[in-house]
Amino acid sequence: MSILASSVLSGDRLSLARLLTCVENDVSEGREALDVLFTYTGKAHLIGITGAPGTGKSSLVNQIALSFRKLGKKVAIVAVDPSSPFTGGAVLGDRVRMRDLSGDPGVFIRSMASRGSLGGLAQATAGVVQVFDAAGFDIILIETVGAGQSEVDIARLAHTTLVVEAPGLGDEIQAIKAGILEIADILVINKADHAGTDSTERALRSMLDLAHPVQKIFHHHGQQQTAQVEPRPTNNSESAKELWIPPILKTVAPEAIGLPELIEAIQSHAASLQKSGEWLIRERARLSAEFDLIIQQTLLDKFHAFVPASHIDEVMDSVQNRKLSPREAATAMINLGGI
Amino acid sequence: MSILASSVLSGDRLSLARLLTCVENDVSEGREALDVLFTYTGKAHLIGITGAPGTGKSSLVNQIALSFRKLGKKVAIVAVDPSSPFTGGAVLGDRVRMRDLSGDPGVFIRSMASRGSLGGLAQATAGVVQVFDAAGFDIILIETVGAGQSEVDIARLAHTTLVVEAPGLGDEIQAIKAGILEIADILVINKADHAGTDSTERALRSMLDLAHPVQKIFHHHGQQQTAQVEPRPTNNSESAKELWIPPILKTVAPEAIGLPELIEAIQSHAASLQKSGEWLIRERARLSAEFDLIIQQTLLDKFHAFVPASHIDEVMDSVQNRKLSPREAATAMINLGGI
Repeated sequence: MSILASSVLSGDRLSLARLLTCVENDVSEGREALDVLFTYTGKAHLIGITGAPGTGKSSLVNQIALSFRKLGKKVAIVAVDPSSPFTGGAVLGDRVRMRDLSGDPGVFIRSMASRGSLGGLAQATAGVVQVFDAAGFDIILIETVGAGQSEVDIARLAHTTLVVEAPGLGDEIQAIKAGILEIADILVINKADHAGTDSTERALRSMLDLAHPVQKIFHHHGQQQTAQVEPRPTNNSESAKELWIPPILKTVAPEAIGLPELIEAIQSHAASLQKSGEWLIRERARLSAEFDLIIQQTLLDKFHAFVPASHIDEVMDSVQNRKLSPREAATAMINLGGI
Repeated sequence: MSILASSVLSGDRLSLARLLTCVENDVSEGREALDVLFTYTGKAHLIGITGAPGTGKSSLVNQIALSFRKLGKKVAIVAVDPSSPFTGGAVLGDRVRMRDLSGDPGVFIRSMASRGSLGGLAQATAGVVQVFDAAGFDIILIETVGAGQSEVDIARLAHTTLVVEAPGLGDEIQAIKAGILEIADILVINKADHAGTDSTERALRSMLDLAHPVQKIFHHHGQQQTAQVEPRPTNNSESAKELWIPPILKTVAPEAIGLPELIEAIQSHAASLQKSGEWLIRERARLSAEFDLIIQQTLLDKFHAFVPASHIDEVMDSVQNRKLSPREAATAMINLGGI
């Protein structure tokens, strides 16, 4: 085992920070350590927190971290900001966090900004989460800023997904909710001391009824997965009684109102996943999606190693002159490469 | 040429709708027609409109469409909603649109929801845009709901990218802006009759100064591209005078306030791109990115055709048992496939 990997296992924070950077940058030292450390993963509870801007997610994530610290759990926070090519936003968030969580050796915060390519951020985040898992963090909070497809993909890394809403964020957000509700295990109306909380709750309740007809609940994680895994068929009728109905909880993060109930719901959800076998199904879907991403990236790397850039330039000239369509060009290149 | 492709070229709306569906679903009929129609593309002005929820983007897009119609242009609207696996949100948006634009044969609206896989939506959107381009639409408005990485990737399809803001949307949105500003050619403060417009303008102005130091303006579209193209080096010193500084415009969409100025800015931007050669550079980057996506997808398809699903299941069992890391499993599979 590399010195870096063993230092991380022994709890050294500097080594942990260094390894996270290696993994984020996808350098060989990080890849090798990840392969070694992978054996030690599979223990942490991964919790995704997503939702539209303006819902007070960061503040809520802080409070969740504090609550789990009081229960003696080690907590890692991975703050993912797909829209930011620099770390501006993430750094700002960290500064706010420092007030509550700084100096606590049981907490580690990592901000991740855009990797500039489709899939790159999801892959880097998966790696960072594995490092924290191997390093013995019990709870890993994966917070995404924004509410687009990449955020949904990242939220799918988690065992438990929290979708955070806030009262009175307007009509367009209502429309977005429809899609994002599908992935929610727990719905949180934060800023629940604001006007409009009741009507937000009513709206969520009716959308929830629409999004979660009973038969879909077992399958909703497998449904849209790029991975090849099918959800494990349930083989006893008792399972029907284990259905998880996403609860709607209300919080006011700065005053920690509603936090005990939220932590309880998170823990109940983990217990329910384990009882129904869904914990393993979600883990399998997550690992399969990661496998697919690596396959895709490796094949593309092989292609670029094989086909000279000058050939690609030439064929792209024909595309730009409308002599070949992009698909015809791609087919020609792949046949040329004999792949 | 297929009957479908020639009917689309002759302006038949039903054939157009059918081809769009084929392209969205990536069926062979769509692929073949796209290859044929590609020759006829390259004439439309692609305009991306992105920004956070609650900024009134859809209403603004309607007004932009109406304005271009008054100038005699044919207008297509592609409404992309990456967060919605069903079309709920998009359909809602369309209903609002119908009031202003329905019955006008010079307008065609298409809503696109999530394709369920990374890159799938970007690829489908690129295809739909090419169909509209070949079918003779002069202006193609590509509207994205949300503000994540996928939205940014889709906005990059355009020649001209509008980033829409609104006054008083809170701190978290400020953080998101930093990333999204990098791709803005024109900034629009919509809902400019609301309180806080001046402070939003000041904030945007200072972030803009940060995001657009003079030397970056030529390169900001190439910078983060997954494509292999380098921005064409400028070969005369005069180009320095052609720098496009993103203007900040104010609109109140429902009353069409600020629309003439916005249309003028969009047209000036197109003229500036053409004068500086950037129009071709952006087109090349767009086509290269599409080429890369197709290469990636084709290679993954070949992999799955080659490696039996049962082999993948077995190796994933070893991953779930922590005997192999996802990367080790992927390497083993690729070596097995002899690819």
